[in-house]
Amino acid sequence: MSKFENVSIKKEANIYHDGKVTSRTIEFADGSVKSLGIMLPGEYTFGTKEAEIMEMMSGELDIKLPGEDWKTLNTPESFNVPANSSFDLRVKTVTDYCCSYIK
Amino acid sequence: MSKFENVSIKKEANIYHDGKVTSRTIEFADGSVKSLGIMLPGEYTFGTKEAEIMEMMSGELDIKLPGEDWKTLNTPESFNVPANSSFDLRVKTVTDYCCSYIK
Repeated sequence: MSKFENVSIKKEANIYHDGKVTSRTIEFADGSVKSLGIMLPGEYTFGTKEAEIMEMMSGELDIKLPGEDWKTLNTPESFNVPANSSFDLRVKTVTDYCCSYIK
Repeated sequence: MSKFENVSIKKEANIYHDGKVTSRTIEFADGSVKSLGIMLPGEYTFGTKEAEIMEMMSGELDIKLPGEDWKTLNTPESFNVPANSSFDLRVKTVTDYCCSYIK
């Protein structure tokens, strides 16, 4: 069980899709931001402002990144999403993830 | 939007009831522990080891504490649960909560 040390966490959750996708925002001393989240099975499309690295800590999903075909990812795989774009997901099993926002 | 500063957070989520209840464990510099969690609508029973203070940050639920009748709670109400006991919940709307463990 890994930990993030010496961080700030926003108390209130980020809640999307009627609670099927939720996350907590973590702020690091160096100013970087990550979110730790849960996605329940379902189909979702997410937009990005900053580029993102999505690390899967549990679960299985299919993903369609911009300009790519659908592909299946399993834990502990991760995927990168460019800034100002979007990606489609078919979440197959409860997925625990860590999203890093890349400035 | 309130924050917990200078804390550690376990990266992996605590996942219960097929992901309908999930939480993140937060450790404070003084050794105290809280969890920030989400409960989707449903009926749940939880056991306690330590006494707990459950603070609702969003949502509505019915609760049955040991030896009490069912009652409805709304945000920002909270409830206390004794150590080594259990409580029943009927979560009506997505509930964002903060659980403090009392040693």
